[in-house]
Amino acid sequence: MITHPTRVNICECWARDGLQNQREVVPTGKKVEMIDRFTDLGFRKIEVTSFSNPKVVKQFADCMELLKRIKRKPGVSYVGLVPNMRGMDRLLEAQREGFGVDEVIVIISASEIHQKTNVGKNHPDSLADLGPIIAKALTARMKVIGCVGTAFGCPIAGDVPLAKVVELSAWYKKEGADTIMLGDTTGMANPVQVKRTLAELFEKVPGIPYIAHFHDTRGVGLANTLAAWEMGVDLHDSSLGGIGGQPATDKAAYHVGFTGNACTEDLVAMFEEMGVATGIDVDPMLRVAREAEQVVGGPSRSQVLRSGRVRHEPVEYKEAGDG
Amino acid sequence: MITHPTRVNICECWARDGLQNQREVVPTGKKVEMIDRFTDLGFRKIEVTSFSNPKVVKQFADCMELLKRIKRKPGVSYVGLVPNMRGMDRLLEAQREGFGVDEVIVIISASEIHQKTNVGKNHPDSLADLGPIIAKALTARMKVIGCVGTAFGCPIAGDVPLAKVVELSAWYKKEGADTIMLGDTTGMANPVQVKRTLAELFEKVPGIPYIAHFHDTRGVGLANTLAAWEMGVDLHDSSLGGIGGQPATDKAAYHVGFTGNACTEDLVAMFEEMGVATGIDVDPMLRVAREAEQVVGGPSRSQVLRSGRVRHEPVEYKEAGDG
Repeated sequence: MITHPTRVNICECWARDGLQNQREVVPTGKKVEMIDRFTDLGFRKIEVTSFSNPKVVKQFADCMELLKRIKRKPGVSYVGLVPNMRGMDRLLEAQREGFGVDEVIVIISASEIHQKTNVGKNHPDSLADLGPIIAKALTARMKVIGCVGTAFGCPIAGDVPLAKVVELSAWYKKEGADTIMLGDTTGMANPVQVKRTLAELFEKVPGIPYIAHFHDTRGVGLANTLAAWEMGVDLHDSSLGGIGGQPATDKAAYHVGFTGNACTEDLVAMFEEMGVATGIDVDPMLRVAREAEQVVGGPSRSQVLRSGRVRHEPVEYKEAGDG
Repeated sequence: MITHPTRVNICECWARDGLQNQREVVPTGKKVEMIDRFTDLGFRKIEVTSFSNPKVVKQFADCMELLKRIKRKPGVSYVGLVPNMRGMDRLLEAQREGFGVDEVIVIISASEIHQKTNVGKNHPDSLADLGPIIAKALTARMKVIGCVGTAFGCPIAGDVPLAKVVELSAWYKKEGADTIMLGDTTGMANPVQVKRTLAELFEKVPGIPYIAHFHDTRGVGLANTLAAWEMGVDLHDSSLGGIGGQPATDKAAYHVGFTGNACTEDLVAMFEEMGVATGIDVDPMLRVAREAEQVVGGPSRSQVLRSGRVRHEPVEYKEAGDG
């Protein structure tokens, strides 16, 4: 029987999946300041950076420096994306010097054409690359998040077979991944599909936790999050301000429109209103959200940030004449 | 047993609940043009105007003229709001001249202080007013939608007792209303509360359909819509562009922030993606949504309008070199 979790663990993706889509490189000091704020707010999982090629992804060229400078709080998992073995080797170097990460994310797109377009390799070659990266992470006592990208649809291929998502999830499990992230890379999921996908995965690849990672490309990021939660998922990803996603530029130009992550402010507020503990207080989070707006230089997509959280208590208000 | 509806009836609220919140009065011709577009798109229910005091609510001062000019399609229900007996009498006059409405909405806030603030009357006096209005509508062979406003929370009183929502729903049913609208007036609902509220109403006030009317004040309008649908509700309200709601001005200044309705574009697209028939084609709807943006002079809040609907078929795309 599926029970709805009474407590969820929300990974704040602002500093990685969020900033990935920002044209302007955010100064390292600002990133560190924000990540420290997330730690203080009570997030138990924070995506902090990516070990991408610094020449290609300038936003994360500061990954080593950033990892040195962020505050570490016991019980908080700091997460880094590792796109290839070169990235893994840099991460291991950081780890040896005492400033690694707790969890690594590795990614493969369920859509082979999407994988080829992004990485230049087909599925078998990509898996051949990923296996040793996962092994190295595990040997170095880091946890591994195996992300299945385009799990709910691909902007190039269209529909993605659920069997492929199952197959890749099973592969991750076999390789020793600790959790599996279902990435709705360009926001193509819908709530019915989310439930169907999870039901299939629970049956075919049981015994491993799933992370719900939705983008709000079509306005249903929170509805999809709700659907995943109703299926028992307690690991959810979001980004403050709803920023993020694959850059809609250059070779990723097949995707048009907005690709931002589900918005943390609204997602946390929704869970808290539902009586589901996030460990995050809404009002301090909204203050940090305003700082985040300053840092990225654009308005948050949050509605809660504009309207404030739901007030359950009466407000002082001069009553109109009792007619 | 609750079954998820395979077909839903979405009421397009743009011309009434939507425009209610717009400062600029939209020319009657533009309204008529848009309402006719909604008819052509396949909406089976359209809120067209309000019989408010034309001196107070200038946006609807043209209600008689508008009703004369809109196209009527058999099978489509044209809906008007009636706030008081004076409004009802004007509607009956329109009806006698052959251009009435098919359904009237009458409203009472579940929060008494909200009702007093908006209407200047307490609950008993308000019900004493509403009874004869409903009776007149029924006698004139119009259908009646009894709206319970602030059904999920009040910006002044905070929490609203579910017992009050039940009581007012039972009253509407007794008076002969055809459907009951649960109005989340300032977007305070959450999905768990939506399910709890509906479960209680199905038990205590059964045998009458409920309309889910959500505002997206806190970003969960679609998640709440999903929750209502999962409870079996097949009547949903939304507004193109997500415009609408109680004006955040003057005596309603106790509410700050955004109050727009759940956004039609994203709501229709969500249902269609879920395999739930709305009777609306997404692409033509998006074209009308762009016209609506021109009319209200501001961008739609829709994400689907920016990103386009989900494409299930592959797109032509030059494949990168197979590595």
